Amino acid sequence: MSKVHNYSAGPCILPPEVMKKASESVIELDGIGLSLIEISHRSKEFVAIMEKARDLVRELLNVPDNYTVLFLQGGASLGFYQSAINYMKNDGGRGAYVDTGSWSNKAMKEAALLGEVVELASSKADNYQHIPKGYKVPSDVDYLHLTSNNTIFGTQFKSIPESDVPVLCDMSSDIFSKPIDVSKFDLIYGGAQKNMGPAGTTVYIVNKDSLGKTGRKIPSMLDLQVHDSKDSMFNTPPVFSIYVSMLTMEWMKSIGGMSAMQKRNDEKAALIYGEIDRNPLFKGTTAVEDRSTMNATFVLNDEAAHKERFDKLWNDARISGLKGHRSVGGYRASMYNALPVESVKVLVDVMKELERTA
Amino acid sequence: MSKVHNYSAGPCILPPEVMKKASESVIELDGIGLSLIEISHRSKEFVAIMEKARDLVRELLNVPDNYTVLFLQGGASLGFYQSAINYMKNDGGRGAYVDTGSWSNKAMKEAALLGEVVELASSKADNYQHIPKGYKVPSDVDYLHLTSNNTIFGTQFKSIPESDVPVLCDMSSDIFSKPIDVSKFDLIYGGAQKNMGPAGTTVYIVNKDSLGKTGRKIPSMLDLQVHDSKDSMFNTPPVFSIYVSMLTMEWMKSIGGMSAMQKRNDEKAALIYGEIDRNPLFKGTTAVEDRSTMNATFVLNDEAAHKERFDKLWNDARISGLKGHRSVGGYRASMYNALPVESVKVLVDVMKELERTA
Repeated sequence: MSKVHNYSAGPCILPPEVMKKASESVIELDGIGLSLIEISHRSKEFVAIMEKARDLVRELLNVPDNYTVLFLQGGASLGFYQSAINYMKNDGGRGAYVDTGSWSNKAMKEAALLGEVVELASSKADNYQHIPKGYKVPSDVDYLHLTSNNTIFGTQFKSIPESDVPVLCDMSSDIFSKPIDVSKFDLIYGGAQKNMGPAGTTVYIVNKDSLGKTGRKIPSMLDLQVHDSKDSMFNTPPVFSIYVSMLTMEWMKSIGGMSAMQKRNDEKAALIYGEIDRNPLFKGTTAVEDRSTMNATFVLNDEAAHKERFDKLWNDARISGLKGHRSVGGYRASMYNALPVESVKVLVDVMKELERTA
Repeated sequence: MSKVHNYSAGPCILPPEVMKKASESVIELDGIGLSLIEISHRSKEFVAIMEKARDLVRELLNVPDNYTVLFLQGGASLGFYQSAINYMKNDGGRGAYVDTGSWSNKAMKEAALLGEVVELASSKADNYQHIPKGYKVPSDVDYLHLTSNNTIFGTQFKSIPESDVPVLCDMSSDIFSKPIDVSKFDLIYGGAQKNMGPAGTTVYIVNKDSLGKTGRKIPSMLDLQVHDSKDSMFNTPPVFSIYVSMLTMEWMKSIGGMSAMQKRNDEKAALIYGEIDRNPLFKGTTAVEDRSTMNATFVLNDEAAHKERFDKLWNDARISGLKGHRSVGGYRASMYNALPVESVKVLVDVMKELERTA
């Protein structure tokens, strides 16, 4: 088959060598005579996989010793509630949120079940085309919650606000795309299905010293201290998703870790945004300084004149998943770690071809 | 490689043809040029998989029209809380539980965070070697909760108590092992990783008319009405686990559905329990009338004399996962749907061989 250029916003492309090894493991894991998916999660083989996955997160992101790494379930959607219930005080709890779009809104909605939600800043008035700035994080809230990258609107925090209170961050769509200073956060959480692995597991990176301070009774499966006390094996974990995440992290490490990922992602982003800015037929939809390196959103200046032909061109080039989210319209090029630079070049060529033949 | 006889208590054996197709799909799904695990969950291909999986549950278990079928996450461990929060009234809520072992205990612990837990009956005093009987289900509770099969102790409900209140049942370890009358339950939930598929998804079969009556505000990810309103796609689902569950259900259907499963499982159970009762070196650990067809628990009458040799014999026969749970000791033969009768014959032969050479 000819290659499909997979721009899916998630679940999304993973490296071919990861796919190959994952496929083999479903038949037989490392010569043990059993499939990965039919062994006990308490077997020495799977315990080793879980430990290696946790260690790779530590190594790749340089996680401080007083943090724990957990592989849980439920995606960011459960994380919105789970982050709040582990940090919002039972008595008069208040959580501060920066509203950068749909995901922030969902996080606020779940937190409001537990206490007061303080909306510190919002870019809703301009349809979330920029990341709000210029606000001060109050010290009388239990935490600050951020969404580091906004897949739908194509914006991304380029720096983290100064904060005296714990910072909780949904990093679902840009974790492992670049080096981060984990010590600036008390909780990082993210669904695996962008840069880390297949759908089905959610990574939590947690400052252990920040837990257990709310005075709440927390359901066991939502209690980060419970999961930490069981080394992320409180219950049967999503075995396949964790194994493939481990393989993907091994791949990231093998090609240079986070600085290599950043270089690769910056290169891809420069290519696509360069063409968006150069090509008179297109325009970007977000503030330039807040552009996401993961999800480039753009529109045609004249849809009526060019949409049909552009859609045909990129479909003919076997580009998949380029349609923009309905909240923004137009196009969205999601360029997670495993998307090759070559795929971006194919898209840029298609954009140039449209201009040439328009 | 020679065949391993996989008696793992879960995650556990799945049919070889399911493993093969699952493995292939990780490389490429049905000729679409993309892997199962890199496509969007909103793609037409995955939407069709989700719908087929939901339909197969309906078809195999003859699910009434007013019920919905959902594929969620978190296993029974999250289900303990999730079942309670969807059925226990906010004001003066009371849930009745039959205590049949570890899993029931965990369910009671989570429900106690939400209201009063009424322990109707318990077999704790004899280390859960039988299923309690002879109690009456009160009508002044919000629901009755049961654990249909107890993996650790090897007991199983053979009939469901009469109840005027909704019956909620954790069927993680015997769902799809036999025909069930779904209409007797308002909620059935179970982790996939026994008879249905790999770890990572949890099936919920829910009487829609029974929802929304608690007066509670429920977090979105725990709200069964929310998941139903989104056709089980409220958030990114665990794609791989659902796909492989679909394949496993197709396999069950192809070989005759639930009545064929029951016949197969009864045959395996008769073989192993027949030998446990016949062989003077062994004894079963549970009341005969409550014996699980899924997990046969047994011990050696004289461990000091025979343990070392028995363990060598079954290891040499490439039997895996036979060690009993630490709460019971001895041995546990977990015989989920995909375990072939031949594997049970190998174990029975080993037990006979021990007797012959003792």
